[in-house]
Amino acid sequence: MAILIDPVKELVDRDLSIIEQLDLKLKYVANTHVHADHITGSGDLKTRLKIEDVQSIISESSGAKADILVNEGDVIKCGNNVKLHVLNTPGHTNGCISYYYPDGPFVFTGDALLIRGCGRTDFQQGDSGKLYDSIHTKLFQLSNDCLVYPAHDYKGNLVSTIDEEKKFNPRLTKTREEFIDLMDNLKLDLPKMIDIAVPRNLICDIP
Amino acid sequence: MAILIDPVKELVDRDLSIIEQLDLKLKYVANTHVHADHITGSGDLKTRLKIEDVQSIISESSGAKADILVNEGDVIKCGNNVKLHVLNTPGHTNGCISYYYPDGPFVFTGDALLIRGCGRTDFQQGDSGKLYDSIHTKLFQLSNDCLVYPAHDYKGNLVSTIDEEKKFNPRLTKTREEFIDLMDNLKLDLPKMIDIAVPRNLICDIP
Repeated sequence: MAILIDPVKELVDRDLSIIEQLDLKLKYVANTHVHADHITGSGDLKTRLKIEDVQSIISESSGAKADILVNEGDVIKCGNNVKLHVLNTPGHTNGCISYYYPDGPFVFTGDALLIRGCGRTDFQQGDSGKLYDSIHTKLFQLSNDCLVYPAHDYKGNLVSTIDEEKKFNPRLTKTREEFIDLMDNLKLDLPKMIDIAVPRNLICDIP
Repeated sequence: MAILIDPVKELVDRDLSIIEQLDLKLKYVANTHVHADHITGSGDLKTRLKIEDVQSIISESSGAKADILVNEGDVIKCGNNVKLHVLNTPGHTNGCISYYYPDGPFVFTGDALLIRGCGRTDFQQGDSGKLYDSIHTKLFQLSNDCLVYPAHDYKGNLVSTIDEEKKFNPRLTKTREEFIDLMDNLKLDLPKMIDIAVPRNLICDIP
């Protein structure tokens, strides 16, 4: 039994090869949010395996379609040992969730909390104040040794901890007001794929 | 106390930032071989920390200069808990070593064994037969659950196991003769940086 978090369309061949080699049964493809920078692999994984065996997951608050819509407090069970807890962590988008695995402890934070950074808040109902609160009142309440696995890193960092991010995240160590001011003035270009990716991700890429 | 395996010049700022934030004392910079595709970060890490406190390591068989030259069977101790065992795994270059950490178990294989691949054998005294033997008679003798951390991966794979590579490595599941024939006919371009990187790596980038 396996669960894939935030699969990406371009990497489905790689993922299927590992699933086949390790003789895993893919049960869930779990998305942290409606991504704007790439298309989810959820649709391709479902159709290339057995469409009814693989269940796509996304948050109810995302407004997207999926086999399973989840909310804060839901627990996703996979096999006998894996239980992922859903934490609502909106702010990058309104429907962002994190998947928390207490037995690690690990947390998969999507684009809410990145390593020494965070997701942008200037589209898809992004809200800097909400993101600050999600991180401080939800993610930073997890234990200091909890490993943080975000959806992206642009410098080759792979993993962090809640303790490291509390101490060294240059954005999240600011006050709420300073954070909002910083995030509102990033002046970033829109992701190149946003017009293609968002509509397809709103249906987990299953027409 | 910390040990960095195969640091890269371009990533020294990132590495120093983590070392400082986590309040680590870098004791060793350990190279698996004389790289041809990038310059080691050993020299910059030594000079930007305290040159006599950080010891560079490479194999004696590499012909390179370093503070410590190691051989098969040597054990590098770092702090109270970390002991890395040196395994000679020549073939990609004549001086390639792997660092084995039995308490993981993990093995850092440099460019000898890659995930579903292996290092090329067409320069720097590369020898396909030797590489096949290093992997089969040395690395594949480690326990099946031993995690494999290579120096490169071009598809975003981060870790494998000895068991996975024994079963699924498309090159190493061939016979020795088939492997030699395959490796001798890859017809790859030389790495762009070879003429700059090799001479600097032969002195661990410390003039």
